[in-house]
Amino acid sequence: MTESFDAVDVIRTKRDGGVLSAAQIDWVVDAYTHGVVAEEQMSALAMAIFLNGMGRAEIVRWTQAMIRSGERMDFSRLSRPTADKHSTGGVGDKITLPLAPLVAVFDVAVPQLSGRGLGHTGGTLDKLESIPGWQASLSNAQILTQLEDVGAVICAAGAGLAPADKKLYALRDTTATVEAIPLIASSIMSKKIAEGTDSLVLDVKVGSGAFMKDAERARELARTMVELGTDAGVRTVALLTDMSTPLGLTAGNALEVRESVEVLAGGGPADVVELTLALAREMLDAAGRPDADPAAALRDGRAMDVWRRMVAAQGGDPDAPLPVARHTEHVVADADGVLSGLDAYAVGVAAWRLGAGRARKEDPVQAVAGVELHVKPGDAVRKGQPLLTLHTDTPERFDRAREVLDGGVVISAGRSAAERSAGQTPVGQTPGTGRTVVLDRVAG
Amino acid sequence: MTESFDAVDVIRTKRDGGVLSAAQIDWVVDAYTHGVVAEEQMSALAMAIFLNGMGRAEIVRWTQAMIRSGERMDFSRLSRPTADKHSTGGVGDKITLPLAPLVAVFDVAVPQLSGRGLGHTGGTLDKLESIPGWQASLSNAQILTQLEDVGAVICAAGAGLAPADKKLYALRDTTATVEAIPLIASSIMSKKIAEGTDSLVLDVKVGSGAFMKDAERARELARTMVELGTDAGVRTVALLTDMSTPLGLTAGNALEVRESVEVLAGGGPADVVELTLALAREMLDAAGRPDADPAAALRDGRAMDVWRRMVAAQGGDPDAPLPVARHTEHVVADADGVLSGLDAYAVGVAAWRLGAGRARKEDPVQAVAGVELHVKPGDAVRKGQPLLTLHTDTPERFDRAREVLDGGVVISAGRSAAERSAGQTPVGQTPGTGRTVVLDRVAG
Repeated sequence: MTESFDAVDVIRTKRDGGVLSAAQIDWVVDAYTHGVVAEEQMSALAMAIFLNGMGRAEIVRWTQAMIRSGERMDFSRLSRPTADKHSTGGVGDKITLPLAPLVAVFDVAVPQLSGRGLGHTGGTLDKLESIPGWQASLSNAQILTQLEDVGAVICAAGAGLAPADKKLYALRDTTATVEAIPLIASSIMSKKIAEGTDSLVLDVKVGSGAFMKDAERARELARTMVELGTDAGVRTVALLTDMSTPLGLTAGNALEVRESVEVLAGGGPADVVELTLALAREMLDAAGRPDADPAAALRDGRAMDVWRRMVAAQGGDPDAPLPVARHTEHVVADADGVLSGLDAYAVGVAAWRLGAGRARKEDPVQAVAGVELHVKPGDAVRKGQPLLTLHTDTPERFDRAREVLDGGVVISAGRSAAERSAGQTPVGQTPGTGRTVVLDRVAG
Repeated sequence: MTESFDAVDVIRTKRDGGVLSAAQIDWVVDAYTHGVVAEEQMSALAMAIFLNGMGRAEIVRWTQAMIRSGERMDFSRLSRPTADKHSTGGVGDKITLPLAPLVAVFDVAVPQLSGRGLGHTGGTLDKLESIPGWQASLSNAQILTQLEDVGAVICAAGAGLAPADKKLYALRDTTATVEAIPLIASSIMSKKIAEGTDSLVLDVKVGSGAFMKDAERARELARTMVELGTDAGVRTVALLTDMSTPLGLTAGNALEVRESVEVLAGGGPADVVELTLALAREMLDAAGRPDADPAAALRDGRAMDVWRRMVAAQGGDPDAPLPVARHTEHVVADADGVLSGLDAYAVGVAAWRLGAGRARKEDPVQAVAGVELHVKPGDAVRKGQPLLTLHTDTPERFDRAREVLDGGVVISAGRSAAERSAGQTPVGQTPGTGRTVVLDRVAG
């Protein structure tokens, strides 16, 4: 039996910079889930939390209360250890697609309960739905069977996990209370802890395309989540990774699936491969497979095999051609020089405006829409050279996509990264781009 | 035609400490009034305003937008100048009742559009409704007629004035966003400016029984409101007055009417008389009657005459006996000494719990319920002496009223105020109590 409080008193406590008691948190999360605390009361509390913060004990309790609002999954009967990955969301971030089958190669179960895109970052389920026949929804029993048979599953998170978070997330989205560290950390970790994974690797994005624009805030978010996971008995590690420019050469649903398949075939853009391998090594390490060689599994086709079985297990045809846009247009260089900036946020919003994302959660997305990159920051470019290709089925969207790219594509005088490094790739940099994707690591 | 914005962008601007543009304010107030901006979005914005404040230009624009949300009244056809008074609300604050007829004696029209009580402070309309037959609701035409015929009217503010404020006030009440200076100032002043009075005297309360617990914040609120009024062409003055202990010797509806009639008969508690005269002098001054002598009008019955005509004009019987509670209980002194504290908030909540106020706006109130004081801070008391009488028709409420008075009534060893002043009343102090009611004055 939960003690009862007055919602106004709870809001006032946080508004005035106080610490919410465990009993207040248990009550307010439960009462909100059941409609006793009104939406407008929770939004006032969320804004007070946004501006006045929460201490560690409050965040732990808030997360526990959200976990208790729903069911918990149980992977303990599986014959393998489980490892999960969560990304805070970025532009062109298709890493889940090659990563899940890659890690499963080494007898680790990878349950990737994912979401759809909202705003300028794409959703993993939206991407996979561009594969003809593929189904996002599985029952808990189907998830367990697929983990046992294939080793990897990417599917929709059921409504049963942390329903308080589901309700609160929708509210935060319309009330400008998304980017608060306590609320982001508790939202992510309540779902991951309720899911019941043994280990978890967090990919915390930093830069213009991410929630966290600077490394200090990203590090704080990473630390908070690693603490929450560790406290709950989940082996948790976080990598801070660069999201100032898109990951890889595509942003959009079918476009990103195509690029992911290239990586699984042993090719693909260097930065996507780098991050896929870095995350795979962390997951394999946490799952007790320190000697696994994921790079070999990409080269020799073992990861591709698991990918094909994973897609097929959910009704998808791994051999079917992916849909292609009816209309494309180029964005060309307006001068000779070096591409010094290709802003992740601008590319993400452009892909969204072309139809790859949704403004409201009930909107459909275009599988074919998105942005294809032909150059990366550091590359030399010539006037008139195509820099980007815009894809859509609805050509009236081109203008608004170009609008947001103005100022996001910067060409400067100067030497290219290739000229500067003269063929030498520094440790930790993606070859040929002068770019370091993994910026830092936070462990418990 | 108002420019259109995204509510999330507007909230984010204030959340991040920015300044809302005039166009953003016009849009958000209008869109909220028409339900385009949702309650939970406005509550997040209200909390961001609470915690990050608004600058002067923002408050002015916000107030103008609330005025524009509804109708404006026009008193310009009256043969007399208009003067209004507004109190920020206190315990035992019945000053409107003697003040309106008193000022009207001097050929000044006094339109007092009032509200009902919510929480621990009483409502002027609730008090007057304890007079048999009295009606709170008048049409605009009836208000004008009564102002011309009687000179004073105390009635319910129509729904037409600043409907945006009406909606926002109800929201603030449930989301702990009441006590923000920009929101209080714009709420009060939008209604008063829309009402169309020529001059306005503000009674800004300070102390435990008021919204503003300290003088600095009260002074800031007063200054903000005086600026808003002056900018809008209303002659505006504010007095800061003490609300650490109740005004007068009663808190409750019929009890306060009885005390008001005593003041109109030339008697009544010294602090009520002092504040009534101080506010009357400000209103008369602002209305161009600097030589009027309101003290004489209390002594010689002219104020009482206007009171009787005012009550009768709204259907009330000024000669009918006021209702009396079926149950009373005393709170007695538990020691000899001096009453050093009689907390306004504790008395206000006690009166409210006895049935004088309401928890929800649709609740009824008891005309008879309330607290009667037999002593004031500074008075000598003897063990067993009755300090307070609690009044109610529902005796099961006594216990909860006594509970909140515990700690609100403080008896100390030491000399009484009468002993200290040895019969001398310092300038500005209420005789016999050592109390100064009017603390400061803020003018444009």
